Amino acid sequence: MKMKGIKGGLCAVKGVRAHGIKEGNDGLALIEGKGIAVGMFTSNKIKAAPVRFTEKQLEEGEGRISAIIANSGCANCFTGEEGMRNAEKMAELASSSLGVDKEEVVVASTGLIGKQLDMGSIERQLGEVVQGLTSDDKGSMSAAKAIMTTDTFYKERAISINAGDDERVVIGGIAKGSGMIFPHLGLATMLAFIYTDAPLGKEVLRRSLDDAVDNSFNMVVVDGDMSTNDMVLLVSTGQGGKVREEDFKEGLNFVCKELAKLIARDGEGATKFIEVRVRGTASVEDAREIAKAIVRSPLVKSAIFGERPDLTCGRIIAAIGSSSISGDMEPGSISISLKSEDKGGEGKGQREILMVKKGEFVDLSGMARDIMKDREIVIDVGMGKGKEEVSATAWGCDLSYDYVRINVG
Amino acid sequence: MKMKGIKGGLCAVKGVRAHGIKEGNDGLALIEGKGIAVGMFTSNKIKAAPVRFTEKQLEEGEGRISAIIANSGCANCFTGEEGMRNAEKMAELASSSLGVDKEEVVVASTGLIGKQLDMGSIERQLGEVVQGLTSDDKGSMSAAKAIMTTDTFYKERAISINAGDDERVVIGGIAKGSGMIFPHLGLATMLAFIYTDAPLGKEVLRRSLDDAVDNSFNMVVVDGDMSTNDMVLLVSTGQGGKVREEDFKEGLNFVCKELAKLIARDGEGATKFIEVRVRGTASVEDAREIAKAIVRSPLVKSAIFGERPDLTCGRIIAAIGSSSISGDMEPGSISISLKSEDKGGEGKGQREILMVKKGEFVDLSGMARDIMKDREIVIDVGMGKGKEEVSATAWGCDLSYDYVRINVG
Repeated sequence: MKMKGIKGGLCAVKGVRAHGIKEGNDGLALIEGKGIAVGMFTSNKIKAAPVRFTEKQLEEGEGRISAIIANSGCANCFTGEEGMRNAEKMAELASSSLGVDKEEVVVASTGLIGKQLDMGSIERQLGEVVQGLTSDDKGSMSAAKAIMTTDTFYKERAISINAGDDERVVIGGIAKGSGMIFPHLGLATMLAFIYTDAPLGKEVLRRSLDDAVDNSFNMVVVDGDMSTNDMVLLVSTGQGGKVREEDFKEGLNFVCKELAKLIARDGEGATKFIEVRVRGTASVEDAREIAKAIVRSPLVKSAIFGERPDLTCGRIIAAIGSSSISGDMEPGSISISLKSEDKGGEGKGQREILMVKKGEFVDLSGMARDIMKDREIVIDVGMGKGKEEVSATAWGCDLSYDYVRINVG
Repeated sequence: MKMKGIKGGLCAVKGVRAHGIKEGNDGLALIEGKGIAVGMFTSNKIKAAPVRFTEKQLEEGEGRISAIIANSGCANCFTGEEGMRNAEKMAELASSSLGVDKEEVVVASTGLIGKQLDMGSIERQLGEVVQGLTSDDKGSMSAAKAIMTTDTFYKERAISINAGDDERVVIGGIAKGSGMIFPHLGLATMLAFIYTDAPLGKEVLRRSLDDAVDNSFNMVVVDGDMSTNDMVLLVSTGQGGKVREEDFKEGLNFVCKELAKLIARDGEGATKFIEVRVRGTASVEDAREIAKAIVRSPLVKSAIFGERPDLTCGRIIAAIGSSSISGDMEPGSISISLKSEDKGGEGKGQREILMVKKGEFVDLSGMARDIMKDREIVIDVGMGKGKEEVSATAWGCDLSYDYVRINVG
């Protein structure tokens, strides 16, 4: 199986048209494309109306959808019955504009909590958006821009998989999300809409999405602390070539990780992108818990912002110990490396330094300080338990003054 | 039962002598006082040497101790066998200086992780500290100052309980801790040493401490994210008057809550003190979880720093929903009030405004904005489930630019 990055985001998938507009804080995106859809939704106990509406739409029918309508600026959350009627109304407006069944339209929202949607404005924007629907690259881009809130750049990715014998499938998606320094609630919802032409059944799509989200978006957003509006949708048009389930999974994992990393890179106020790899735990779940505990620690994040390897190391140790895994930890078996994978932007190339070697701090000056000045750093933790190849990766960013500035409102 | 605040901190308890010195980042405190001791220790899976040493000391004997020796500047954590030997050495030094059994000395440390103790410096400081031991108020104060790290003020409290019929008991303590905006790891350990003369057995002391810590320190520090060095010790000299268990518990709860609130007030970079009260849940545990979820949310904290009631409210809703309690939540039964309990410092007196009334945002301008300008605000959440009197309170502070400044090192 071969995989390569291609242009076009969502619209790289044949049969998908999209468009979006953004006016001030209010944006509207429409994606048209018939297919089988599966979704993953926020685990927050207070779910926004569009989340409940879309969950129900996908559960009740066979999961076939014709369109996604998504707005930014208002989360339509904590809005009672009026909010639920408005989510339905959004679906109805899209269905009548496109001439498709209203049962086949799903809805997503992101923005302020506790505010009702301005349905007049949405109806007006929809008229314009429908006119602009297109299958060229600009469609994906304008939809990705329309759902941005505190995001500083739009996010899309697409790949083409050569599954052998001229069989070719495409996976393309857009995402939004910026407040990912920490499990981010309120304005900073994460949305991702992914289309593919791979002719796979609902069960395979379901398994593939669960797996990909666990390895990607869930390693940026900390579980259980999701926003009220988070939503990931995967839709298959079924018009592509044949592909084996494992090849599709690998491709979907790649696209989801790329989108998740874009979200981490766009972390509010971020000056550095951090990748945390944890190896040698009793299970993959343990490795995930430890990696997330490190990447969510505000003390680790602020020490990285301050480029202080000594403080970073001690705080990583404390974060490892605070993770909620079962069983004991042996400090004497823990090793920590700091890496830079600078691809030569500043001509320095890849560098690596061992900071903790089996329970002892070894070198926290010289090269460690130098590596910490990079904009992209990798923290590699070997727990020395179980198998070395059991591992997980999490992504995040540092905690800077600008995080506070952005969030004071 | 009557209770009143008195002076003297630790030294308000008869038979207790203390002293401490601080030189740059390195401090040493010694507390002398014979009694039955119980302790609570960090739940971090990587425990510092002094934590393991003291836990063992209290488990093995009958729990009688004669002295506490505590240093600041070095956490003696992640220091291998040498660290364990140094913790023992600290106890030995104190025991020979004071002429008490070394089995009756316990040890605490706070400071940098991954660094070995400078035993020469500790021995030298100890000589000076022993000379200064005193039972007057200055003893408690100098010990409280010696264990400070990023703390901006020293923390002590004492009360006298009139248990009737001329029976009188005293509870006095000191604490340190500042990095409590978030579960704070690394430099920002929480230590509290509390003495009492109440003649109570080990079991009653144990129950009383568990209860008090659950209602106080655990409502500032988030469980499971404690530092590697956190420690709370309660020691009874037994020389006071008779007191009923429930009266003692009430007094100990009061002292622990006062010390916990001092820690929240001294939160790194804090400009506002926040109290979150949650009522009307199915259980006290649920109320605690929800209160802590609100007070630990960086988005809620930064919205409060920005004095934005609209953003604060939406983010409180999302934080409530993200708390890990079981069972459903009904948005329509949630009410949120914002209060100021300004005791007239600026002559405004107590004010209160309902921001969310049974699931609907009601007024987020005018007085709400005015109240948010206060330095101490109370957020009162009614969940409208179970019994109204089921409640819990958590304490914290806002998230300001200075938090980042302090933690970049």
